[in-house]
Amino acid sequence: MVDAPGIPVGPAAGALDAAAAVDPDRLWRRHMAMARHGATAAGGVNRQALSPEDVAARRELRGWAREIGLQPSIDDIGNLFLRLPGADADAAPVLAGSHMDSQPTGGRFDGIYGVLAALEAVEAMRETGTTPRRPIDVVAWTNEEGSRFAPGMMGSSVFAGRRDLAAMLRVRDADGVSVADALAGLMAAESELPKRQGTTAPAAYLEAHIEQGPILEAKGVPVGVVTGIQGKLTLRVTVTGERGHAGTVPQDERKDALAAAVALISAMQDAIADGGPDVKFTVGRFDTTPNAPSVIPSGVDFSIDLRHPDDGVLQDLGDRIADICRPERAGCDVRLDELSNDQALEFPEALRALVGASADGLQIASMPILSAAGHDARHLHYMCPTAMIFVPCRAGVSHREDEHADADHLADGARTLTAALATLADAG
Amino acid sequence: MVDAPGIPVGPAAGALDAAAAVDPDRLWRRHMAMARHGATAAGGVNRQALSPEDVAARRELRGWAREIGLQPSIDDIGNLFLRLPGADADAAPVLAGSHMDSQPTGGRFDGIYGVLAALEAVEAMRETGTTPRRPIDVVAWTNEEGSRFAPGMMGSSVFAGRRDLAAMLRVRDADGVSVADALAGLMAAESELPKRQGTTAPAAYLEAHIEQGPILEAKGVPVGVVTGIQGKLTLRVTVTGERGHAGTVPQDERKDALAAAVALISAMQDAIADGGPDVKFTVGRFDTTPNAPSVIPSGVDFSIDLRHPDDGVLQDLGDRIADICRPERAGCDVRLDELSNDQALEFPEALRALVGASADGLQIASMPILSAAGHDARHLHYMCPTAMIFVPCRAGVSHREDEHADADHLADGARTLTAALATLADAG
Repeated sequence: MVDAPGIPVGPAAGALDAAAAVDPDRLWRRHMAMARHGATAAGGVNRQALSPEDVAARRELRGWAREIGLQPSIDDIGNLFLRLPGADADAAPVLAGSHMDSQPTGGRFDGIYGVLAALEAVEAMRETGTTPRRPIDVVAWTNEEGSRFAPGMMGSSVFAGRRDLAAMLRVRDADGVSVADALAGLMAAESELPKRQGTTAPAAYLEAHIEQGPILEAKGVPVGVVTGIQGKLTLRVTVTGERGHAGTVPQDERKDALAAAVALISAMQDAIADGGPDVKFTVGRFDTTPNAPSVIPSGVDFSIDLRHPDDGVLQDLGDRIADICRPERAGCDVRLDELSNDQALEFPEALRALVGASADGLQIASMPILSAAGHDARHLHYMCPTAMIFVPCRAGVSHREDEHADADHLADGARTLTAALATLADAG
Repeated sequence: MVDAPGIPVGPAAGALDAAAAVDPDRLWRRHMAMARHGATAAGGVNRQALSPEDVAARRELRGWAREIGLQPSIDDIGNLFLRLPGADADAAPVLAGSHMDSQPTGGRFDGIYGVLAALEAVEAMRETGTTPRRPIDVVAWTNEEGSRFAPGMMGSSVFAGRRDLAAMLRVRDADGVSVADALAGLMAAESELPKRQGTTAPAAYLEAHIEQGPILEAKGVPVGVVTGIQGKLTLRVTVTGERGHAGTVPQDERKDALAAAVALISAMQDAIADGGPDVKFTVGRFDTTPNAPSVIPSGVDFSIDLRHPDDGVLQDLGDRIADICRPERAGCDVRLDELSNDQALEFPEALRALVGASADGLQIASMPILSAAGHDARHLHYMCPTAMIFVPCRAGVSHREDEHADADHLADGARTLTAALATLADAG
């Protein structure tokens, strides 16, 4: 890395001053304004990637950035950058942000919080007359959710060079619209927006996000210093038996794919129970053929979502699942396909320490916390020193229209982000 | 019952002569001719109740009956009767038949065999100059399969007074067409057909059918004397949990409806295993909500099809399933609904003995066998002495396009039917 900053052990005094200028009301108002783009009747948000709602939200964000004096640019996958210039224009920038797209029945905080917290941070720096040495880019990554265009984390992974731009542009949604087509619409709507110049690797990346889990709320701690992201293995199990009449085929002559699938899932649950409290095992999709009450099922196809913070444990549990799927089961063939294997990752200790010290310096309680969900930070981590800040969300609920976060918590997270960001942007 | 016949212990000599006149080639040719009505590319039949294919098959059947000199009539639910007059026109008739409709991907023998075997029986009696004392009605019951209009066994249950005609006429198919509308089309196509007169209860009912199971083939026995029909309980289990993020909600805080459903089915399988070799337990339908790989399921809805020849055992197993569903499971609510409860039934021993003696008299090997599937005979049983004759089908396969029965077996079943039918029709 050409311009790797040494990471300070604690926040600079000016950075703490900037953090104190974070405006909780403004931050909340902007969340509520953004929630109008794709607002659902149930109080949530449907703002899928590159939809008209996403485009409108981006336009409103750029309006706020313009008032602050930030310089916008966009890259080939539609990632939006809003730059606070630094004293040293050639220094590698520090990035902070998240995503603006939502699930189809998503909430008002997932993603957008990280973008608005970063915007609040640079506005607070502006207001306190802080000009950092490095440029700071507030960034909104394209299509983190992956609900319209799969895979998710599309913009951040292309930016980090971990997925191929051309392949991503060919991805189509359920209506057959390609990412390239949808991006052309976005670019047309943002034609006055310059393309991002250069390919300088960021000096660091910070992302604030709601926890999407219940831990911070339960502990009564407003800021989580994210230790890393748990590993995730996604598998598909295909069980093939033989169709038959529910009334006539004797039990011991059946090749009942559903009975086999139930036995497989039971065995997996038993095996997974050894993995300790950190393992997360979910069968979320389960499709039966022909799915008729009086017909012995000939086929079952189910998904496995397996996560663990320790890669060794994750791979070991994956191996156990493979062992369980190896033999025939209840006379049925069993096939296991690995769809994805995302390794667990740990954010750099020095950067986590700076985030923790920033919270301490602001007298905000914080605690280390593992991210159970994936985030854009997963990809940035392989590009530059990366860290995440979590704030509580009510009952751990996310990806739902009743997702909620408290204004005070959002502000505490934004203050911590501001202190860490301003400190990093001055680091040599 | 006004005109209950004494059931002879063995076949009359003339009845055995008539049975010897059964023509295996003619019987086979008629099966192949009927299989053209609704023929599928894979060699099966799609001839659902009251469809144009069903109407065309009925028309061809009536043409054959006309050549034999049978008198057609139809009742209000579309059951078709083809009468061989008896010497005593006022005597209660003996009925023999089955159904002509098929499953959407059905075979060439299920149902239609019982109708064609009965037609063959009266034709053989005609050819050997046998005039019975009682009339014999060859009968084709409307909508046994229930695949287009649910419930099945519609015509026979209305005839036997066990279901309400008006309610059945209101039943609609998936396209919104009512039974009444479809019947009006049938009646228009068969307008020259007189309505069946009178409501004399039958003196007896005989039904030939392919086994739809593997037992006769495995034993190498061409004729099964059906002892009865196993009982059947159909249940629906609704599990309600709570939707959540597969990556963030700790395992012990989940209300995972699919995990609960798997535990329920496992517990049911264990409980059912005590029921002995005759129990048949099938979960054929299993629907998951929202059915997405990374979402903890909030709901699962699954079907149970439970059958046993002994009603006491069936009810006991049903109670055990109810017990299993009573408590919460994995934090989820469990609800159990009973959709149907058909008691096991045993056909009268005297009539079974006559069928067995008829096969013996023709030197056709036979064995007692339980019917695992429901048939029109289920309803006739409660109206008059009823028996069934099974013939083998290949590999026990039925409700499939590759369903197959041997011409020799069809003929042996028809001969046994002829001898028993002719004997009953002469009984006082």
